[in-house]
Amino acid sequence: MNTGQRLSQMRQVMSEAHIDAYIIPSNDPHQSEYVADHWKSREWISGFTGSAGTVVVTNDHAGLWTDSRYFLQAEEQLKSSSFVLHKMYDQFSAGHIDWMKGHLQEGARLGIDPLLFSIIQEEDLQKKLGGAGMHLVYIENIMDKIWSDRPELPRNKIFRHDVRYAGSSRSEKISVIRDQMKTLGADYHLVSTLDDIAWLFNIRGRDVDYNPVVIAYAVIGPNGVVLFIDPAKIDAGLASEFKGDAIEIMDYQSLAGFLNKLPESASILVHKPSTSIAMYRAINARIIPGQLISRDLKSTKNATELKHVKDAMVKDGVALVRAFMWLENELKTRTVSELEFSDKLAECRATQDGYYGESFGAIIGYRGNGAIIHYRPEKETCAQILPEGILLADSGGQYVNGTTDITRTIALSPPTERQKEAYTRVLKGHIALACAIYPKGTIGGQLDVLARKPLWDAGLNYLHGTGHGVGFFLNVHEPPQGFTAGLSSRSNTVLKPGMITSNEPGHYVTGEYGMRIENLIVTVESDKEGFYAHETITYFPIDTTLISRKLMSDEEIAWLNAYHVMVRNRLSPNLDTKEIEWLEQKCRPI
Amino acid sequence: MNTGQRLSQMRQVMSEAHIDAYIIPSNDPHQSEYVADHWKSREWISGFTGSAGTVVVTNDHAGLWTDSRYFLQAEEQLKSSSFVLHKMYDQFSAGHIDWMKGHLQEGARLGIDPLLFSIIQEEDLQKKLGGAGMHLVYIENIMDKIWSDRPELPRNKIFRHDVRYAGSSRSEKISVIRDQMKTLGADYHLVSTLDDIAWLFNIRGRDVDYNPVVIAYAVIGPNGVVLFIDPAKIDAGLASEFKGDAIEIMDYQSLAGFLNKLPESASILVHKPSTSIAMYRAINARIIPGQLISRDLKSTKNATELKHVKDAMVKDGVALVRAFMWLENELKTRTVSELEFSDKLAECRATQDGYYGESFGAIIGYRGNGAIIHYRPEKETCAQILPEGILLADSGGQYVNGTTDITRTIALSPPTERQKEAYTRVLKGHIALACAIYPKGTIGGQLDVLARKPLWDAGLNYLHGTGHGVGFFLNVHEPPQGFTAGLSSRSNTVLKPGMITSNEPGHYVTGEYGMRIENLIVTVESDKEGFYAHETITYFPIDTTLISRKLMSDEEIAWLNAYHVMVRNRLSPNLDTKEIEWLEQKCRPI
Repeated sequence: MNTGQRLSQMRQVMSEAHIDAYIIPSNDPHQSEYVADHWKSREWISGFTGSAGTVVVTNDHAGLWTDSRYFLQAEEQLKSSSFVLHKMYDQFSAGHIDWMKGHLQEGARLGIDPLLFSIIQEEDLQKKLGGAGMHLVYIENIMDKIWSDRPELPRNKIFRHDVRYAGSSRSEKISVIRDQMKTLGADYHLVSTLDDIAWLFNIRGRDVDYNPVVIAYAVIGPNGVVLFIDPAKIDAGLASEFKGDAIEIMDYQSLAGFLNKLPESASILVHKPSTSIAMYRAINARIIPGQLISRDLKSTKNATELKHVKDAMVKDGVALVRAFMWLENELKTRTVSELEFSDKLAECRATQDGYYGESFGAIIGYRGNGAIIHYRPEKETCAQILPEGILLADSGGQYVNGTTDITRTIALSPPTERQKEAYTRVLKGHIALACAIYPKGTIGGQLDVLARKPLWDAGLNYLHGTGHGVGFFLNVHEPPQGFTAGLSSRSNTVLKPGMITSNEPGHYVTGEYGMRIENLIVTVESDKEGFYAHETITYFPIDTTLISRKLMSDEEIAWLNAYHVMVRNRLSPNLDTKEIEWLEQKCRPI
Repeated sequence: MNTGQRLSQMRQVMSEAHIDAYIIPSNDPHQSEYVADHWKSREWISGFTGSAGTVVVTNDHAGLWTDSRYFLQAEEQLKSSSFVLHKMYDQFSAGHIDWMKGHLQEGARLGIDPLLFSIIQEEDLQKKLGGAGMHLVYIENIMDKIWSDRPELPRNKIFRHDVRYAGSSRSEKISVIRDQMKTLGADYHLVSTLDDIAWLFNIRGRDVDYNPVVIAYAVIGPNGVVLFIDPAKIDAGLASEFKGDAIEIMDYQSLAGFLNKLPESASILVHKPSTSIAMYRAINARIIPGQLISRDLKSTKNATELKHVKDAMVKDGVALVRAFMWLENELKTRTVSELEFSDKLAECRATQDGYYGESFGAIIGYRGNGAIIHYRPEKETCAQILPEGILLADSGGQYVNGTTDITRTIALSPPTERQKEAYTRVLKGHIALACAIYPKGTIGGQLDVLARKPLWDAGLNYLHGTGHGVGFFLNVHEPPQGFTAGLSSRSNTVLKPGMITSNEPGHYVTGEYGMRIENLIVTVESDKEGFYAHETITYFPIDTTLISRKLMSDEEIAWLNAYHVMVRNRLSPNLDTKEIEWLEQKCRPI
């Protein structure tokens, strides 16, 4: 079945349901960034495989809205279909909504799947489209009617994440959450986000790429907890553990019925941005809108998690030493494709204890490809790396004791003065954020500029956030905190001790090169009362051949040299003589 | 009539209207910061004269909620009444709402004056109190029934602000606004804020303290404009000018009736945060919620305004030279009270051409008083300044060609090393913001940290914003922009060329001293494409005896010395020989 046939079946179903437009988003019912194949309906109907985009189908139009990261890819993938690409130049605009307001008539009926839109998104749609006289119509799983070979929901077994890594048992976590629920007057608390469920129950799984999560819902009640999950995923050992922790298993599909049967007199704490319309509407109890308690608890890593993630960072650094040494060596005699180096990174990580997989698809961008922010090398089209020019490598691993995410930019031949200046400014920004001392109560949005200022001073900037929260053997993009400007909940989250956040300023010249220096940093108490500081926990040398020393202050030079001493000390015990020699050369003081 | 009698009359009226609680805010129907005596009902009933605070009266409780700036003053002013002071430690919390939720029963009826609450505030109240089962009851001007000697609305004549200062005629301004209204599909646009009306009609007045505004409303229509104002305030000359500009005068009280008679088919652009419930509800036309167009236009000063404000800054600097010279001289032989110096500043300003009055009540804080952020010297209680210790002076003037606002901190005897370090860090922050270069699209909230970082590095901070917008012969606190952290619309406003904003980091040691260095800065195009910079337009020396030179970078020293060269060059032509001598000594390079 080609895109044309899919569209015409879609229109048939729409016509039967008297719908003028149908909106297909990218996410699953859990508002996930990565979704299981079962929920890739936007990809199925349009052929567009990018991670972000929205499809709107009307009787005479099929449109895909996506942002600048995906313009080239979307053009290519849509060209043989009747889909029209709508380019979104502002990541925060809702282009498809404006389009519908301009192209649909008053009284139009807009179909959406109430599982795929959060109640907050619904309120936004109601406000914007209701004002224009349009109506939302809810149809669950419309895709089932036309997507005949739709993949099943994944049925992978889940496994226990041992408390010796997690640092806190599931009963301890549930008890802390229950205390907060009591304070808020909530008898129940609904958890829809997959990483929160994985954290809460100390479980992991293989249901989606890169994120070691499990498809499930959970409701914490006054006495017991219910985990809504396909029971086939749970082995006998885990089932008996759950029983001991007063965790009841109910089928994944039974949440709506459960919510509907809650007594009217009961109260339930609901996080509206992650709760689907379908589940929200099913609730019979009194709703208390509020935060996801687990999201805040999860973001501040405990002492055990922090100890482990530093171990994982050592393993990751060792793997990177081997992969980069290998690359240098290969380039002496031949070219290496971006994808080959990406694979090599994964291969070197895979030899480390406790390795589980990549934490995201590695971004290996040689020369101009490095300037494409979310570039991913593909087999047919990726570049061959030569022993010249600049290479950007952004990759990460999932280990049973931590999640890593690191970017390094290296010069494969002597860089120009212009390149050195830009790289040095990126480094200065990176150091400024790493060294920041800030009062309790500071939000990430306040610190973002520290990483940008050295670039701004030269009229340069980068059009992405400076940092995102990182999970512990969980999602590499973990809310709530981040270093980013503007109005998002990410930028407005107060930084707290134990939070792990990336520090990744960059500089990009279209068609020429991209530069980014990324370490993970932890918010820690500082030696000044009432102030926090950052501890850098990523261990791998920063290319010094790209540095213009005269642009660096004495303090910045001291930071870099101290960082390299730490890298050498942490990694050397795990390296052989040749590797140590290579590392020491890379870690020489400037 | 004492507070007790006032309260019992209030309760009588409340009982007749079956109201369980009545809320009295500080503002007027225009959401003004400074209000005419007519609207000082919160002060009248409670005796508390501070600028910020909310009263709630119930049958058995009378409470005043105010923030830490006013704790001492409120305690003093409430002590002989039955009013209870509720201390608000978080400026953004709505303490009285929480209190009502905790103390009033479900079904309680809460009275408010629909003229004094904006429609946004109403939505917030409905959300918070409606959820707790309470109802809002609207009673206009309840105070009229019990406040027998309530002052009349001011009837001062208004006067023209000449276009040679304003740089743009009222018909030009109206025409630009009408163009934007057309784009938004709005036939009408309601303007409730007094400074916007003054700007729009190029008029000024004396209706409230410090802000040269006029009590009025305006509605811009498709063809004409209606100014709702007491006609007695307009002299024949202005009346005929208005006629020529197609501006119709209607009585101030007739706005609600006018809005009610708009055709249902018409549309009206309404800025909800500044529109009262009463006016909003009176509107019969289709409401388009949006911005105040004039607020944005007004914030970006035109070339004429910028030229004039720099002239006003020279006059202001000259006045300050005389006042500070006078202080130094007097202190040789006697003490000077804070209030005396405050008066002297106003007196020196008053001798300057085009002077109109103070732009706010001067904050002259000697020693520990300088640490009280919104301190105002009072005749009976103010301190005597001795020739020792630290003095903070924050003052400003209204000139027909500009509004000024400047803070200087001076050492009257040799400072300690600790004082020098703190002062130098304040100065470094001030310089960092003055020198900032930032891409188009940057919001004030992103830059705030630049002024704080040198203080944070030493574990210091200040608990106020770094800067606020400043009007042109208008309000010294002018929205929308500002340098401040967090979620406010002030911090989230994009900076644009022509905006005048204060740059005022500080440092405060309770009971010892306060330090603040404040200049006004204008957002200007920089020499780097796509980037803006700041131009400092306040001209008065920064005390160098408080500087620890070794903490300053070469660039910072160069900035300070260049600033002092500029100050000398601008002010000297207007000074006599002795004054020039004094200034040159203060402006010596470090």
